[in-house]
Amino acid sequence: MGIYLDHAATTYTDERVLEAMLPYFRNEFGNTSSVHGFGRDAGAGIVKARQQTAEAIGASPGEVYFTGGGTESDNWAIKGAAEEAGSGHIITSAVEHRAVLDTCKYLETKGFDVTCLTVGEDGMVSAQSVADAIREDTILVTIMFANNETGTIMPMKEIGEVTKKHGVLFHTDAVQAVGHVPIDVNELGIDLLSMSAHKFYGPKGVGALYVRDGVKIAKLIHGGSHEKGMRSGTLNSAGIVGLGTAIALAVEEIAPQAAHEAALVQRLKQGLLSMPDTRVNGHETSRLPGNINVSFDGIEAEALLLHLDLNGIAVSAGSACSSGSNKPSYVLQEMGLTIEQARAAVRITVGRENTEQEIDTAIETIKEVVSNLRAISPLYQNKQAKSEE
Amino acid sequence: MGIYLDHAATTYTDERVLEAMLPYFRNEFGNTSSVHGFGRDAGAGIVKARQQTAEAIGASPGEVYFTGGGTESDNWAIKGAAEEAGSGHIITSAVEHRAVLDTCKYLETKGFDVTCLTVGEDGMVSAQSVADAIREDTILVTIMFANNETGTIMPMKEIGEVTKKHGVLFHTDAVQAVGHVPIDVNELGIDLLSMSAHKFYGPKGVGALYVRDGVKIAKLIHGGSHEKGMRSGTLNSAGIVGLGTAIALAVEEIAPQAAHEAALVQRLKQGLLSMPDTRVNGHETSRLPGNINVSFDGIEAEALLLHLDLNGIAVSAGSACSSGSNKPSYVLQEMGLTIEQARAAVRITVGRENTEQEIDTAIETIKEVVSNLRAISPLYQNKQAKSEE
Repeated sequence: MGIYLDHAATTYTDERVLEAMLPYFRNEFGNTSSVHGFGRDAGAGIVKARQQTAEAIGASPGEVYFTGGGTESDNWAIKGAAEEAGSGHIITSAVEHRAVLDTCKYLETKGFDVTCLTVGEDGMVSAQSVADAIREDTILVTIMFANNETGTIMPMKEIGEVTKKHGVLFHTDAVQAVGHVPIDVNELGIDLLSMSAHKFYGPKGVGALYVRDGVKIAKLIHGGSHEKGMRSGTLNSAGIVGLGTAIALAVEEIAPQAAHEAALVQRLKQGLLSMPDTRVNGHETSRLPGNINVSFDGIEAEALLLHLDLNGIAVSAGSACSSGSNKPSYVLQEMGLTIEQARAAVRITVGRENTEQEIDTAIETIKEVVSNLRAISPLYQNKQAKSEE
Repeated sequence: MGIYLDHAATTYTDERVLEAMLPYFRNEFGNTSSVHGFGRDAGAGIVKARQQTAEAIGASPGEVYFTGGGTESDNWAIKGAAEEAGSGHIITSAVEHRAVLDTCKYLETKGFDVTCLTVGEDGMVSAQSVADAIREDTILVTIMFANNETGTIMPMKEIGEVTKKHGVLFHTDAVQAVGHVPIDVNELGIDLLSMSAHKFYGPKGVGALYVRDGVKIAKLIHGGSHEKGMRSGTLNSAGIVGLGTAIALAVEEIAPQAAHEAALVQRLKQGLLSMPDTRVNGHETSRLPGNINVSFDGIEAEALLLHLDLNGIAVSAGSACSSGSNKPSYVLQEMGLTIEQARAAVRITVGRENTEQEIDTAIETIKEVVSNLRAISPLYQNKQAKSEE
């Protein structure tokens, strides 16, 4: 199959997760809204999954609502909070995922006022900048838990303290963080949290929104009385059982898994930084264990990606959601990188199945391809010539 | 497992469908937005599924947008049309699924004017009533293809002619119809059509919205550039491949399957109508082949359901989405049934795997339970006594 180093884009579904899902396609296929045995059997799976999901983030089962994925969760949390308030001011950051940014832009067209915070060179949103932006009419702060491109983990606890102090709702797009770093919504003061199963070895097309008990948000999807009337649509029982199983496994194995990923990333870092004119982007310590974002001066990441793909190695330039657009990463540019530096950046995200052997192969191949690309890059050759003058 | 006669609530996932889905959890697990091989492999599955889905309803692949299910499709179509128009008048019917009714009610709170058409005793919405309700400012007609409780198929072609004549958008919630009766969106003049995979032996948590080329609706879910920027969120590749495979199989087998279901329903009808004070609800000929809705005077359907459940037979009272609410069906009441008659109604929906043997067992058990319930029903005993006077 090749070497997959793009786990931030998506993960395969763990065999143990798939095993748990299969009965819900077959014998336990009932509609959980049905009162008969087929419905009850499926319902039991949902109850367990809701318990597993709640436990994984320190919440109560009644605070977990299943959705069609992280993007729906983000849309629901932000639009739901906005509609419930009617009007007001929303604080977000310039490095959010487009599910958050585009939703905020949409709300601007509906009369909401949005402040988009800048980040430091390390990609970090400071809690102080959140505090400074809060106004009398601020209704929501939405700041991601960990950035999808650089892996930088935002100061959740500090931001949670600010929002709590001002009585403002705090939503976080935790799609990249759930299952990868420990999360306790109460400790962190989070009111609304979005997650997506396919980022932690669960299936695609299913996510959840944590809504703190007592927090009121408007519905995004109207219809039947599913999810206490808050999110309509027949429950995706196989997918939800998959999410529950995946999050339980991820949390159970979180420490050894983080150690495994951190070791592989360290190996990658050492190997790649042995090349000249190479830099790592993002915060040095507050980061997801499996992520490394590297700029190779003088090359175009898209060209590197294509050559790596020919060698069966999968990495990405920026997020999967922006790929194909050929625009340099707005996240990296917000951090102060030039367009050239942003275009030269590659995101490598390791996961469960990766081995040291795979990492070594990847390092070797990347080094070779980068050297070849630099050799034919006028930009890089000019720079070299200048520095040798 | 028992005898499952509730296929309108949901179906199991066909083994051939599951087989097609499995690789997308395992080796073909890539994010379809990724440019590398893993992403391309998954993308190829989506291309095929979109083709299959389009072909099944006489549409072009570019007119098919994948969603998280029928309810999301309904919400998107109706809210999207409303938001695009800005203001105006919407026509729907009183027997729609709650995904449509609740969405229309929500839009009323946003200033839209909604006309809710009544139905005849046969559960039919007449095209004439649609024509009569159309106003200068009508922006959308949303009428279901087939009713989820009675199986009554609405006069799609005639309604399509009315909407076309007046230049009004025509949306249909075809969740119960797709894969069960032939559909050609062009022949029927449908502009927007909602479907859900788990109603035709596909997985739960995935659906589609057909949007006629040239029809503009606002987005419901903002974010990445998925689905031509119209519906954001990582594509549920396994689910979408499941939908595509399921719809292709359903359409391929539509005639023999309809014959199989109609024969079983006929057998049920004969068996059940041999009991006194028993009536079939819904249109006699314009109906889904696998549905029969029966009222047994003097009993409470909930009690019948419980007794049947104890015998391993699954049927439903009204729709799955309303079960547990203990409210008598609004659909049947709209058709002129009294509250008692509506409370006495049971929906039986047969499917692929059902056999004549199962139907005979079901008839026998239903007759026995109905007799027992009637024997202890003061309502029924009084009525009997009166008619014997």
